[in-house]
Amino acid sequence: MIIVLDRKATQEDIDRVAERVQAVGLRVHLSRGTERTVIGVIGDERQLDPEAIQVLPGVERVVRILHPFKLASREFKEAPTIIRLPDGTEIGGAKIVVMAGPCAVESEETLLETAKMVKAAGASVLRGGAFKPRTSPYSFQGLGEEGLRLLARAREVFGLPIITEVLSPQDVELVSQYADILQIGTRNMQNYSLLQAVGRSNKPVLLKRGMMSSIEEWLMSAEYILASGNHEVILCERGIRTFETYTRNTLDLSAVPIVKKLSHLPVIVDPSHGTGKWELVKPMSKGAIAAGADGLLIEVHPQPERALSDGPQSLRPEIFSEVMRELVPVARAVGREI
Amino acid sequence: MIIVLDRKATQEDIDRVAERVQAVGLRVHLSRGTERTVIGVIGDERQLDPEAIQVLPGVERVVRILHPFKLASREFKEAPTIIRLPDGTEIGGAKIVVMAGPCAVESEETLLETAKMVKAAGASVLRGGAFKPRTSPYSFQGLGEEGLRLLARAREVFGLPIITEVLSPQDVELVSQYADILQIGTRNMQNYSLLQAVGRSNKPVLLKRGMMSSIEEWLMSAEYILASGNHEVILCERGIRTFETYTRNTLDLSAVPIVKKLSHLPVIVDPSHGTGKWELVKPMSKGAIAAGADGLLIEVHPQPERALSDGPQSLRPEIFSEVMRELVPVARAVGREI
Amino acid sequence: MIIVLDRKATQEDIDRVAERVQAVGLRVHLSRGTERTVIGVIGDERQLDPEAIQVLPGVERVVRILHPFKLASREFKEAPTIIRLPDGTEIGGAKIVVMAGPCAVESEETLLETAKMVKAAGASVLRGGAFKPRTSPYSFQGLGEEGLRLLARAREVFGLPIITEVLSPQDVELVSQYADILQIGTRNMQNYSLLQAVGRSNKPVLLKRGMMSSIEEWLMSAEYILASGNHEVILCERGIRTFETYTRNTLDLSAVPIVKKLSHLPVIVDPSHGTGKWELVKPMSKGAIAAGADGLLIEVHPQPERALSDGPQSLRPEIFSEVMRELVPVARAVGREI
Amino acid sequence: MIIVLDRKATQEDIDRVAERVQAVGLRVHLSRGTERTVIGVIGDERQLDPEAIQVLPGVERVVRILHPFKLASREFKEAPTIIRLPDGTEIGGAKIVVMAGPCAVESEETLLETAKMVKAAGASVLRGGAFKPRTSPYSFQGLGEEGLRLLARAREVFGLPIITEVLSPQDVELVSQYADILQIGTRNMQNYSLLQAVGRSNKPVLLKRGMMSSIEEWLMSAEYILASGNHEVILCERGIRTFETYTRNTLDLSAVPIVKKLSHLPVIVDPSHGTGKWELVKPMSKGAIAAGADGLLIEVHPQPERALSDGPQSLRPEIFSEVMRELVPVARAVGREI
Repeated sequence: MIIVLDRKATQEDIDRVAERVQAVGLRVHLSRGTERTVIGVIGDERQLDPEAIQVLPGVERVVRILHPFKLASREFKEAPTIIRLPDGTEIGGAKIVVMAGPCAVESEETLLETAKMVKAAGASVLRGGAFKPRTSPYSFQGLGEEGLRLLARAREVFGLPIITEVLSPQDVELVSQYADILQIGTRNMQNYSLLQAVGRSNKPVLLKRGMMSSIEEWLMSAEYILASGNHEVILCERGIRTFETYTRNTLDLSAVPIVKKLSHLPVIVDPSHGTGKWELVKPMSKGAIAAGADGLLIEVHPQPERALSDGPQSLRPEIFSEVMRELVPVARAVGREI
Repeated sequence: MIIVLDRKATQEDIDRVAERVQAVGLRVHLSRGTERTVIGVIGDERQLDPEAIQVLPGVERVVRILHPFKLASREFKEAPTIIRLPDGTEIGGAKIVVMAGPCAVESEETLLETAKMVKAAGASVLRGGAFKPRTSPYSFQGLGEEGLRLLARAREVFGLPIITEVLSPQDVELVSQYADILQIGTRNMQNYSLLQAVGRSNKPVLLKRGMMSSIEEWLMSAEYILASGNHEVILCERGIRTFETYTRNTLDLSAVPIVKKLSHLPVIVDPSHGTGKWELVKPMSKGAIAAGADGLLIEVHPQPERALSDGPQSLRPEIFSEVMRELVPVARAVGREI
Repeated sequence: MIIVLDRKATQEDIDRVAERVQAVGLRVHLSRGTERTVIGVIGDERQLDPEAIQVLPGVERVVRILHPFKLASREFKEAPTIIRLPDGTEIGGAKIVVMAGPCAVESEETLLETAKMVKAAGASVLRGGAFKPRTSPYSFQGLGEEGLRLLARAREVFGLPIITEVLSPQDVELVSQYADILQIGTRNMQNYSLLQAVGRSNKPVLLKRGMMSSIEEWLMSAEYILASGNHEVILCERGIRTFETYTRNTLDLSAVPIVKKLSHLPVIVDPSHGTGKWELVKPMSKGAIAAGADGLLIEVHPQPERALSDGPQSLRPEIFSEVMRELVPVARAVGREI
Repeated sequence: MIIVLDRKATQEDIDRVAERVQAVGLRVHLSRGTERTVIGVIGDERQLDPEAIQVLPGVERVVRILHPFKLASREFKEAPTIIRLPDGTEIGGAKIVVMAGPCAVESEETLLETAKMVKAAGASVLRGGAFKPRTSPYSFQGLGEEGLRLLARAREVFGLPIITEVLSPQDVELVSQYADILQIGTRNMQNYSLLQAVGRSNKPVLLKRGMMSSIEEWLMSAEYILASGNHEVILCERGIRTFETYTRNTLDLSAVPIVKKLSHLPVIVDPSHGTGKWELVKPMSKGAIAAGADGLLIEVHPQPERALSDGPQSLRPEIFSEVMRELVPVARAVGREI
C-alpha cells in the first residue's frame, strides 16, 4: 500500500499515519519528494483497511498494491482449477463445456424434449430455472421444487448433469439435493448471505458476474465462496450494463483472458443474457471460445415464442445444433475440443 | 403496447401475433404504413409479456406504452404517501427528515455519543448497521444482534427512532423486533426473496436504489414490497455507477423530481455513499433538498479515522452540525422546514 | 509517480526502470516490500510519460501522484478566476450568472422576442446557436453567419452579451467577431485543433464537459486552452452518459464542488441538456445553485413545440420567469445573489 | 413513428398533433386504447423531427419506428460494400485485412523497421499517426507533415498502403495527398465539420466508434460521410467507456454482428485501443475474427518501451507475428482467409 500525503501534511500527520500502520504489525518506508511525501507500507497490506488510512488528516490518497482477493488469485494457486461433475464432465479442462436448456423449467414435456435435443447436439450440462428472479412481481416466478424434480427427471433420462439457480439462503439445502451445479445470478452476485450459504454447500457454484460489477468485485464474490470452504467455483461472464441500448447488456469478452490471468478458476460465457438477442448468440459464442472461454451457457427452447421467460434470447433447437457444429472448428483453432 | 412488424412480415405472421394478443383477452388495432405494419394492443398491456411477442416471427420491435409498475405509480395513487413513525416523525410531509449515524454500530459508547450529537444537531432518526454487506469476506461484518440491542438502547436513551439494514430473509423477523425502519441496501435492491420478506413485515422499508439500476427497475422493486402487502416504502437515491472515478458513485439528483413525478412514495438522498467523500456531503445535501428531496441519510462518526467501515465519507459531529445549520435556509427557500 | 514492480521482477528490470527515470532528470527511491518492490519517483513527474514506464519489463503498475493538469489547478492559482464581460457582467463572482435563450437561432423575430423576455426575467447573457452540431446530417444545421448577425442585433437592442457555439477551427475568427463568449460543445471537448484555436482567440471560452468525459479529462481540455494563452475559461457541467434512459443525460451536480476544489475556474450548469426534459429544469437549477454553481445555461423558446432543435428541454418564457423568481431565495440561502 | 398521448390528452391536443403530422405530408392513424390514445404516423417518418412532436401538449412519448440512418443501412443497400485500395487490397471481402504499425510515426528508421516486420508477418496496410490527438497539451503531438512523408516513404519501399489520422478539416487536403485511408479517431466521431470534410474527399475513410457512442450514433456519423458524397466508409470498433477500470476501454465485440446486420459497410476491430493492454490483443483478435470482423487494426512497435505514445498496448514484432500465425486457423474456422 502506498499512502500519498497532502502537500500541506505536517510532521504530526506523518507520525499519526506511521503509527496506524505499525499498530497492525506492518512497517513504513518514508519517501520525501519535491511535491509530495509518500509512505510505503511494508508487509501484507490486506491487514490494513485503506479507508481507515484515507480519512487520517494529511492523507491525500491511498493506493493498494495487491489485489484484495487471495484464494481466488493465480498467485495463491498457479494451476488452473478443474471441476469434475459426478458423471465425469470436467469444467476448466481441455474440453469446452456447453450448458444448455430453457431459461425457466415450464413443463415435463418441454424440458425432456429440450434435454434430448441439446444432448444430441453436444451439450454436456442441462440448464433450467426452477426459482426465477423476475424484475416484475407479476411475472412467472418459476415452478419451485416441482421444477427441480423435473430437472432431476431429465437427468435420469438423459444422463445430463443439471445446473439451476438458487435465490435465497434458505433454499440452498433444497436445491443442493437436486442440482449438480448451483447457479448464483447476476442480481445476487453481492448477496453475501447467499454466497456464504453456497460456500458451505458441497456443490460446485457457477457465479455470474454482476451486470455492473468490476472484475475485481466479481473475484471478491468468488473469494466469499472460497473463504466459506467451497473451492469449486466457475465464473460466468454474462454481459455488463453500459449506455448502449441495442443489446440488453454489453458482453465483455475481454473479461475471459483477464480472469484467466488473475485467477485459477474456470470461466465460461453466457451469450444469451450477454446480448439478449438470439441472432447474436452464434457469433458471440464463437468469439467467446476464440478468446479462451472454458465453456458456454446457452438458452435453448423448443418454441421461444411460447417461453415463459427470456424468449427473445433463446435458440430454437435446430439453431443450437448449427451453433454447436460451427463451434467445432473454432475450438480446434484454439487448441480445444468441444 | 405497440408491435412493430418487420418489413418482410407476412400475413401469416400478422395473424399469429394477433392471435397471441387476443388469447389473453386484449384487442388488436392494425395500422399499415408505407414502410412498416404496426399492431396496437388495446387493453391492459401488463397482461402480455413483451418478450413473448418479441420472439414471434415477423416481429421487429415491441414498445411498451405503460410503466410496468402499478401500485407504486402516481396514476394509481395521486396523493403523496406520508409515513409515520411511532414517535410521530413523518417522512414525506412538509418537514425534511434527516437520518444520521455511523455506518456500522461498533460499541455502545461510540453509538450513544453519536446519537446524542446527531439529535442535538437536529436529526430525527438514528442510522447504524448491525449486519454489514462488505465487499471483502475479511472485513468487519457488523455486530449482528448485539448491534441491534445497542441501537435499541440508543433509542431508549435519546428517543430517536432507528433504521438499520437487513441482509437476509431469515433476519427480517429479528431485525423487525428492534428497528423502526428496515433498510434494503443497494446490492440487494433486486434480491427478490428479501423484498418479499420485508413486504410481509409491518415495518416501513427504506429501499436504496441499486447502483446499477434504472429508475424504472427501482420502482419495480418497490412494487415487489407493495405487492407483498407493505405500503410503507421510502425510496433512497444513493448514487449510481458510472465511468467517473473521482467519486465512489455519481449521485443522480435528477432521480428526485423524476420519482416525485412517477410515484407517490417519499424519496430521500444519501450523499455519503452517493459521493464517498465527506467534503462533498454538504454541497450535495443542499443540492438534494433544493431539488425536492424529502430527507437525507448521512453518515456521522465521532472519529471517522477510527471507523470500522466507510470512514472517508463520514462526517465529524461538528461538521454535521454545520451542515444541519446551513440546510435550514435552503429548506426554507423551497418551502420546507428541517 | 509510484512504480510497482512485478513480484518476479529481476535486478536488471529494476535497474532499467531507474535508468529511465534518471534519464529525464528525476530521482528514484527504492522500497523493497515483502510482496512487491516499489520505486518512488522524486521530482516533477509530469516530465515522465506513465505509459513509457508501464511497458518496461518487470513493471506491474504505474500510479500517478499529481493531477496531470497544472494551469487549471488550484495549486497553480489559489484565487478563483473571475471573468469580466464587456458590459461588466462577472462570471465566477458573488452573483449567479444566468445565460438563457433558444437552442438555435431561427429568426430575428423569435430571437428578439426571447431576448426581451429572458432579460426581463433576469438573465445576464443571451445564448443561441448559429452553427449547430446535429446527430443527423438531415437535421437543421443552423443559420451560420446570418445567425451570428441576429445575435449581434439582439445584443444591440437589449444590451445582453451573447454566447454561441463554434464548431470548427476555421470559424473561430468569424464567430469571435460577433460573440462575447465562445462555446465549445460536449462533442468537441476533445477536439484539440478547436481547443487550440479558441485558446489563441481573445474571447472567454465556455467549455462543456464531454458527455462521457471524466472530470480530469475535462480539466485537461481546459488546460489545452489555458496553455494556448487564453486564461478565460468557464466550465459547464451538462450531464454525462450513463445506463439510465429516463433522462437524456445524468446531470452530475457533484462535479460542481469537485471542480471548485481542484480548479480556480468558474463552473456553471446546463440543466436543459443535462436532463433533456423541461420539467426537470426547475428542480435541477435549484439543486445546481444550492450545490455551489456560479451560473446556469438554460434553453428558453417562446414556442418550444415550434423549435427547430431541442424543443423538449426548452422552457416557455413564463416558466423561465418562474424559475428565476424561485431561484432568488435559493441563491440567498447559499450566500449568493442572482 | 408512434405518438403516445397522455391519458389526460384532450381532443384539441389530438387535433394539434394530427395537424402537425399532416403539415409535412404524412398521414395519421388514430388508435384509442383503454388507457392511452396512440397516433401512428404513415409515411417516411424521417421527415418529422421527433422532438418537435414530443413537446406538443398532451404528448407523452414519441417512438421512432425506423432507424434514422438511410444510406448506411442494409435496407438501402443489401450487398456488402467492398472497398478496394490502389494496390488491390480489398476491405470487406473474403480476406481478413490486418492494418498494423506504430501508434505514432517517430522516425524513419523505426517506421521502416516496423513496416518491414508487419509486412513479413502478413499485414496488408501500414498504420501510423502523424497528427496525434493527445489528452495532454504537453504530450508529443506527432510529426505532422514530416510524419506523412515518412509513411509515404515506407509505402514506396514495402508496397503497403497507408492509413493515418486526420484531426482537422483544414488538414484533410494535405493528409489526402499522402494517405490511402483517412482515419477519424474516437474523439472526433461527432466532429461534424471534419466528417463533412472527409466526406468531400475521394479517399476511403475509417471511422472509429466514439468511446461514448451508441451503434446508432456511429452509423449516423457514417451517414454524414456518405451523405457528403463519399461512399467508402470502414467502421472500426475500438472499445467503449464503461465502469470497468481494469481495461482502458471495454471492447464491444457484439457491435460486429450488429453492424453487419444493420449496415452494408465493412467493420474491423482495434483490440489495441479496445483493451489498452498488449497481452489482451491476441485473445481479443481471435475473438473479433471469430465474431465476424472484416479486419483488425493493431499497434506494433519495435520497442514499445521506447514508444512516444500508447506503448502499453503495442505489440513487439515477434508477438505480432505470433498473433498473425495463430489467427490463420481461426479465420479458416469461420470460412475466411487472412
